[in-house]
Amino acid sequence: MKEPSLPRHQRPSQFDQFLFGACYYPEHWDRSWIEADASMMQKAHVNVVRMAEFAWTLMEPRRGKYDFSLFKEAVTTLEQRGIKSILCTPTATPPRWLTYDNPQWMRVNSDGVPFSHGTRQHCCTNNPEFRKESRRITKAMAEAFRDMPSVIGWQTDNEFYCHVDECYCDCCQDEFRKWLKIRYNSSIESLNEAWGTVFWSQQYDYFEQVEIPRKWLQPAPCNPSALLDYRRFLSDSITSFQREQVEILRARNPDWWITHNGIFYNIDYYKFAEDLDFLAVDVYPAFWGTRPQDFIGASRLNERCRQASGTYIVPEQCGGPGGQLKFLQPTPEPGRMRLWAYQSIAHGADGMLHFRWRTCRFGAEIHWHGIIDHDNVPRRRFEEFSQEGEELQRIGPQILGTTKRVEIGISFSYEQDHAQSVLDYSRPQPDTQRELALGELMRQKFAVGYVNEDDSYAGLSILIVPSAIVITEDRARKITDFVAEGGTLLVTATSGQRNTNNHAIEQTPPGLLREVLGITVEEFGNIDHRKMNLCGSTFSTPAQYYEIVECADATPVAHWRFEEFPDTEAAQGKVGLSCNSFQKGRAYYLGTFLSEENITPILEILCDAAGLSPLAKADPNVCVIERHAEDRKLTFVLNNYPEAKRVDELPAGQELLTETPCEGQIILPPFGVAIVRS
Amino acid sequence: MKEPSLPRHQRPSQFDQFLFGACYYPEHWDRSWIEADASMMQKAHVNVVRMAEFAWTLMEPRRGKYDFSLFKEAVTTLEQRGIKSILCTPTATPPRWLTYDNPQWMRVNSDGVPFSHGTRQHCCTNNPEFRKESRRITKAMAEAFRDMPSVIGWQTDNEFYCHVDECYCDCCQDEFRKWLKIRYNSSIESLNEAWGTVFWSQQYDYFEQVEIPRKWLQPAPCNPSALLDYRRFLSDSITSFQREQVEILRARNPDWWITHNGIFYNIDYYKFAEDLDFLAVDVYPAFWGTRPQDFIGASRLNERCRQASGTYIVPEQCGGPGGQLKFLQPTPEPGRMRLWAYQSIAHGADGMLHFRWRTCRFGAEIHWHGIIDHDNVPRRRFEEFSQEGEELQRIGPQILGTTKRVEIGISFSYEQDHAQSVLDYSRPQPDTQRELALGELMRQKFAVGYVNEDDSYAGLSILIVPSAIVITEDRARKITDFVAEGGTLLVTATSGQRNTNNHAIEQTPPGLLREVLGITVEEFGNIDHRKMNLCGSTFSTPAQYYEIVECADATPVAHWRFEEFPDTEAAQGKVGLSCNSFQKGRAYYLGTFLSEENITPILEILCDAAGLSPLAKADPNVCVIERHAEDRKLTFVLNNYPEAKRVDELPAGQELLTETPCEGQIILPPFGVAIVRS
Amino acid sequence: MKEPSLPRHQRPSQFDQFLFGACYYPEHWDRSWIEADASMMQKAHVNVVRMAEFAWTLMEPRRGKYDFSLFKEAVTTLEQRGIKSILCTPTATPPRWLTYDNPQWMRVNSDGVPFSHGTRQHCCTNNPEFRKESRRITKAMAEAFRDMPSVIGWQTDNEFYCHVDECYCDCCQDEFRKWLKIRYNSSIESLNEAWGTVFWSQQYDYFEQVEIPRKWLQPAPCNPSALLDYRRFLSDSITSFQREQVEILRARNPDWWITHNGIFYNIDYYKFAEDLDFLAVDVYPAFWGTRPQDFIGASRLNERCRQASGTYIVPEQCGGPGGQLKFLQPTPEPGRMRLWAYQSIAHGADGMLHFRWRTCRFGAEIHWHGIIDHDNVPRRRFEEFSQEGEELQRIGPQILGTTKRVEIGISFSYEQDHAQSVLDYSRPQPDTQRELALGELMRQKFAVGYVNEDDSYAGLSILIVPSAIVITEDRARKITDFVAEGGTLLVTATSGQRNTNNHAIEQTPPGLLREVLGITVEEFGNIDHRKMNLCGSTFSTPAQYYEIVECADATPVAHWRFEEFPDTEAAQGKVGLSCNSFQKGRAYYLGTFLSEENITPILEILCDAAGLSPLAKADPNVCVIERHAEDRKLTFVLNNYPEAKRVDELPAGQELLTETPCEGQIILPPFGVAIVRS
Repeated sequence: MKEPSLPRHQRPSQFDQFLFGACYYPEHWDRSWIEADASMMQKAHVNVVRMAEFAWTLMEPRRGKYDFSLFKEAVTTLEQRGIKSILCTPTATPPRWLTYDNPQWMRVNSDGVPFSHGTRQHCCTNNPEFRKESRRITKAMAEAFRDMPSVIGWQTDNEFYCHVDECYCDCCQDEFRKWLKIRYNSSIESLNEAWGTVFWSQQYDYFEQVEIPRKWLQPAPCNPSALLDYRRFLSDSITSFQREQVEILRARNPDWWITHNGIFYNIDYYKFAEDLDFLAVDVYPAFWGTRPQDFIGASRLNERCRQASGTYIVPEQCGGPGGQLKFLQPTPEPGRMRLWAYQSIAHGADGMLHFRWRTCRFGAEIHWHGIIDHDNVPRRRFEEFSQEGEELQRIGPQILGTTKRVEIGISFSYEQDHAQSVLDYSRPQPDTQRELALGELMRQKFAVGYVNEDDSYAGLSILIVPSAIVITEDRARKITDFVAEGGTLLVTATSGQRNTNNHAIEQTPPGLLREVLGITVEEFGNIDHRKMNLCGSTFSTPAQYYEIVECADATPVAHWRFEEFPDTEAAQGKVGLSCNSFQKGRAYYLGTFLSEENITPILEILCDAAGLSPLAKADPNVCVIERHAEDRKLTFVLNNYPEAKRVDELPAGQELLTETPCEGQIILPPFGVAIVRS
Repeated sequence: MKEPSLPRHQRPSQFDQFLFGACYYPEHWDRSWIEADASMMQKAHVNVVRMAEFAWTLMEPRRGKYDFSLFKEAVTTLEQRGIKSILCTPTATPPRWLTYDNPQWMRVNSDGVPFSHGTRQHCCTNNPEFRKESRRITKAMAEAFRDMPSVIGWQTDNEFYCHVDECYCDCCQDEFRKWLKIRYNSSIESLNEAWGTVFWSQQYDYFEQVEIPRKWLQPAPCNPSALLDYRRFLSDSITSFQREQVEILRARNPDWWITHNGIFYNIDYYKFAEDLDFLAVDVYPAFWGTRPQDFIGASRLNERCRQASGTYIVPEQCGGPGGQLKFLQPTPEPGRMRLWAYQSIAHGADGMLHFRWRTCRFGAEIHWHGIIDHDNVPRRRFEEFSQEGEELQRIGPQILGTTKRVEIGISFSYEQDHAQSVLDYSRPQPDTQRELALGELMRQKFAVGYVNEDDSYAGLSILIVPSAIVITEDRARKITDFVAEGGTLLVTATSGQRNTNNHAIEQTPPGLLREVLGITVEEFGNIDHRKMNLCGSTFSTPAQYYEIVECADATPVAHWRFEEFPDTEAAQGKVGLSCNSFQKGRAYYLGTFLSEENITPILEILCDAAGLSPLAKADPNVCVIERHAEDRKLTFVLNNYPEAKRVDELPAGQELLTETPCEGQIILPPFGVAIVRS
Repeated sequence: MKEPSLPRHQRPSQFDQFLFGACYYPEHWDRSWIEADASMMQKAHVNVVRMAEFAWTLMEPRRGKYDFSLFKEAVTTLEQRGIKSILCTPTATPPRWLTYDNPQWMRVNSDGVPFSHGTRQHCCTNNPEFRKESRRITKAMAEAFRDMPSVIGWQTDNEFYCHVDECYCDCCQDEFRKWLKIRYNSSIESLNEAWGTVFWSQQYDYFEQVEIPRKWLQPAPCNPSALLDYRRFLSDSITSFQREQVEILRARNPDWWITHNGIFYNIDYYKFAEDLDFLAVDVYPAFWGTRPQDFIGASRLNERCRQASGTYIVPEQCGGPGGQLKFLQPTPEPGRMRLWAYQSIAHGADGMLHFRWRTCRFGAEIHWHGIIDHDNVPRRRFEEFSQEGEELQRIGPQILGTTKRVEIGISFSYEQDHAQSVLDYSRPQPDTQRELALGELMRQKFAVGYVNEDDSYAGLSILIVPSAIVITEDRARKITDFVAEGGTLLVTATSGQRNTNNHAIEQTPPGLLREVLGITVEEFGNIDHRKMNLCGSTFSTPAQYYEIVECADATPVAHWRFEEFPDTEAAQGKVGLSCNSFQKGRAYYLGTFLSEENITPILEILCDAAGLSPLAKADPNVCVIERHAEDRKLTFVLNNYPEAKRVDELPAGQELLTETPCEGQIILPPFGVAIVRS
């Protein structure tokens, strides 16, 4: 399904139908309910369900004794109502017979204490024995369902690393060593050099001596190069765990598509998604609240998926307030659940499943609300769900084939995040800066989106690179080429300071970016209680970081100004923001982090320089997002306010939901949605 | 001593003397001090001491080598001064020879690390071997003291679960499994159903596979049914530990009464007290501060004891400020220690021992002040103690036989608390609501008290049931009968949502209470930042929970009103408080939790409806509590203010402390106490 | 080098050259850089470097296979530029071949989990086998460098107890027991009595049963006498670890001086320093911030070293902002690094090494800035460093031989601190009071300093004894003699309450200090929310502690006054501050702790009584400190403000840095320094 000619983040889906449905757990109710459930789903225009991700014991009550009858019955019953099925490998919840007989397969925490049975993700995915079990159950399931045509695709496991990612069991120690041996070509000297072990006399004589760094069990701060390698290992090893399942599924039925539902930490999803047809993302916007400005939480999450996948599906979208142990999310008001669904679709979702069909009556999630309540009475959430189903059935074909327009790319990279976070200095991290930039540009209605640093920059007018601390020659060349060919670039503080081992480089920063930026950084640090000002914004904790920029070829744009006792300050009057005209483009360097205080003036300078125009005009928290294909543009307009809002300067065209013409202006009701086709 | 015809909480004591004295530690001083101590106690009108709860090693310096001489000498010397003795089994502090030889008897924390010797409660009370030792020392002590007539009663152990309740040793795992086997009639299918193990594929094949749920060692939230069972097990198993001691003591001397000093968590004292003659409670009011309104802390604690016991004793009442490690309680002003003693007596105490006779010079409690200071000089605390002794000697006979009057019952239940707390959603828990209601009604001088949900409701006009989430048919019938017979009922949010397995029920809430309340709950949730108003009170975190009440037979009393953008809200204009006239009574349902914001208007509606009058009239933090018997009423008036206060509308009668007539009005000095007999 | 006739804190150094330089890590760069580094150091007037404290693996890549060539080359190359070397034993960072083969040598945390390799201080310094290794490498190094004349001295290990002090390995348990056996003359009865084990039935039958108290693994608060002994053990055992190295070094070359770089906790440096020629202290003032008043953090640290050592050296002084993991210190403004260096010199430093020559490019401290940046470009920090080098070369000879003048001594004692902190009651501890007094008196320009309670009080006019809770007869006699001979004494609350076992004494407090103070303390406690006032200062949390002072011979100076409801308070109108004229002197007792609220009026009373005058007159955060010798006074004036400040009433003399006369007045530039010789 890959189209290498397009940037990955612009890749359209190959679906023949916009997917709409819910996560379904027939195992939580009597079998006799399936028929009635299917019937009610049909009424709500459901065309797909996802099943079986936590049902290993049910499908294999004893080792090797399989029983797929319940799900086969469900698939068949649903198919009769025109509903297709997505199945999942159930490896997030290994059965008790497995964990009881193999206590050494449990994940182990950093104190060396094994986790216990009873929830999820308790088995170590790096344990070779557990991997055998994973392949066995995957194979058994794949063979059981290979010939059921309404099974259209698979989800591997469930939310890898949602709860835990680290494990310190003996297998993990071994696998980490093997991974290091490969990375360092079996040369312990290379590892010693890469980790700088001469610092604090850490040198290793052979790989067997190396251990996973234990942050809480070392008297002093850990080796940051070792930590960075461990994070890379975490990503690579879960990718390899998944790949085993993917290969088995593809071998059984090449027509199946395969995905996985993220997004969590310590997985480089851009690489991880290469084994999949597309990535998926679980979206519960209520985690970020219900104030108008809170939309950014879910937008950011969708962008993290989109940058790795192009279009994607949402296997779990809010079906009501979710709750576990210490929290119960705020209740979405009428209309808001649908608004949130369209938000994901605007960002690039081509499938929308709500979690879950009916709320469970037992277990840890009895307050994680589904579409239907405990008492099986359809209420307002069911009505809203059905409306969404009807609409997507109607307009889905026009959405399929389009992808989100991005004129301003925000550079996304797990490597940068990890390199920074293992030595984070309580600074605003790249991801914080990304979210600030995304929010600011979305509020101003620009066509903005995340673009992976390994993806193509084709089609971008502006590229924002927040704190890319590790710059390789390849990356430097790509960024330089982007500017040379006419792009507008913004690079922020700390960029280019380190090599891939997380070592400070020997050149003056920003190292390999000095040419395109036309500057050097002569000093950096924190300013404590003293207040300094750049571009009219005064700094406060924690964005109190400054760099003194020396312009070689670049031109100063703004200077540091101290409010009190300026004469005693080294940075006073020095350059804090510079611009370098480089071949056909322009390269800005900001000698601090993007922050709430400075983001507005700095991004205004950038957009003005590139001559970009917003997609429409409206209050800040009305979102305007465009999906486009060669022959059409769909402008999604999403009102996050609890009151009606007017939107101006829209393209003229047809509003799809109401099937009425749009002359460039729309008034949206509270939590309203419009999609203008032009 | 039980009288089954009365509600348990109204049970009077059978003492022939009001007990007054102190906790005494002759082992902390030279033996030669006993005589002088006894003499000084006699001057202070002491008639009882408690001894030996931490003296195992002294009484058994080597295994099987007993030496009771010190305490025998103390008992005898005290008896000569007319002072009786309460002895304690010393099982809270097993000797070092025992813990050193049996490290596997130590309690084990949830990480699997055993506790170490040197403080208290370090041995696992579920270890069968340790239980043998417990029975052995209990038997030895009982036999040693069985013929000393001035030993009148026993305390088992000391403050069970004061510091720790959980233990994860192998014995506890075994005992938990045994307990489950009994509960589920050896049917693992029953356990799987009761715990809903099909959720997340947790199913067990046999009981040996089950483990105590380890909250911090499971990647995701624990099974709430398993957690609830573990809390039940904690209560049942400590009750069984105690029962072994009780049986031994009763067999040795049936004239002894037996008690235990609570109140802590994870013990269902209502059940636990069934093995005792009465329960006891240790009261240190300074834990809650010295502002006038802080009285509620100790009142609540006394009520927790009273609901399980009827009358009771206080083996440890504040003898000065207490202090351990990180805290030193505020110093009670002159008169306040006595005021606090009478507060406990007003709630139902028929015995009052101050902790402790003289402050210890070594160990972890050298700043836990006794009546006498380190230098053995009697100062103001001794004078106050002596005054109390003189008064109680004089008026004690009139107190004995009375119990606290309760017209408004606040339903108390450990089951409800546990069922809520294992899935607590950061909501105000039932106990928080109880305390709020108790405080509000005490400030208004109503005759209010805690009543266990398993106790009789006879004599109550109003019953307040805060968040009774688990409703069985029995409980529903009892509540329904209370209303049918003319009672006024208030039930608050979440009631009736679950069954005894902590599963959501299949009916619309409040399930089995729908008939008596005449309503259903159609939606529930949290409102985030949005502000809503009910009965004039605006919600704020964390009491931001709402339910949409649908009146079937009931009448709306108050509706939800949103302050901003009401049109977009599902709950706007819906019922939040209802009242159902049901046979001879009235049943109110509140679609949220009792909170500081709403408690005053809601309880006013309730008291008006029931036509109740306060016991007297005075400033809020003057407490008025009635103890009554068939032939007399004793109205306790307690001034918690540091200034004189007038109390009006008291019954006419005799003030016992000053032996002067009362015509319905009294002026109390700062921290003053009066007791009007009428 | 010791001169027993002087108080220890007045002991001058025996250097023939004021030491100036940096910490140097030739192992972090290619060998070829040494020559260029030495040349640049020479330009900056460097005369000494410190090396090798973290280079064990480099010097002994395999067990017994030594390679000292790098450091020999460095020593030689530096010597050619006139630069001497301080070497360090590398025992803070044992090699991986050692830790891998001997996992049982790792420190163990209180949960029993061993620490892992990769940082520092991971091996247990009480392990006899590791001690063998420590002696072996020390001996090998000493022999390798014994004949290199430019090696002038040694630092043992590095920053003992900087990260961890406690260890619960089996060796530590054994060593603790051995230590106890010696302390208690092999009598377990003595230990039982000293620890008061009869409290809570803790009695031990033999020493093998005793364990290191585990605060977090005991259900209730630990035995405070056991905790105090464990802290004594921590200090004694690290002292003994060091002593083994010292003896080896002295035996190899008696001309070497030996030091160690503190200051951390749980080491009694006064005793510890007895094995050394002098103590050293690492000073990073940026830890305390860059506001003018923040100077006190570094002043306090320097005083902690001075009280134990007299003059001393600073092996690590700020060379730029330091940063690890979660923090990056604020950048020192131009001139501030030099100001901070002179601050240490004013307090008594006779050697000044900045950390570090060049910032490391890898490992956990890549943002711990050295004098030179990663790119090896000399910038403003190098210029400032060079200026300092030039100045110290010029004026160093005049500084050598002088020591800091102290007229007001603040009593310093680890024993008092530990006795208080193991039962700390969240009170202001002695060290907090010391710092408050030091700050207040420095702001007023008095000649104030810390004096150990075991040191001589000769030369002091005023002695401030903050909360000396443990008073022995020797200490009482010394304090009494000080007053008898004309001194002015201030003793603060809780003093004299306990004996050396941390038991409350049997006498009325202040026990052995009653005679000199002329008072008794009749009551003590906390006052909660109530506000009380003494000397015009109103109390607030946490200094809400009061004592009721009864004047026997003393005269009341101030009385407790409650602001509200005074009639109900026991302390109202009672004495809170007293003064006793005792022989030729005066003894004040303060019945509470020194706090921000009361420090100014109380110290004013004290200084007036003693008739002391300040050294000069200037704004509060301009520091004025005098170093003196028989023939000269050097008045250091340090401007901590970012603006120019005038200083008046200085002695007339010569300003050394500018080589200009001073007539009693100086105007200092921002962050300026002056040294007036008179």
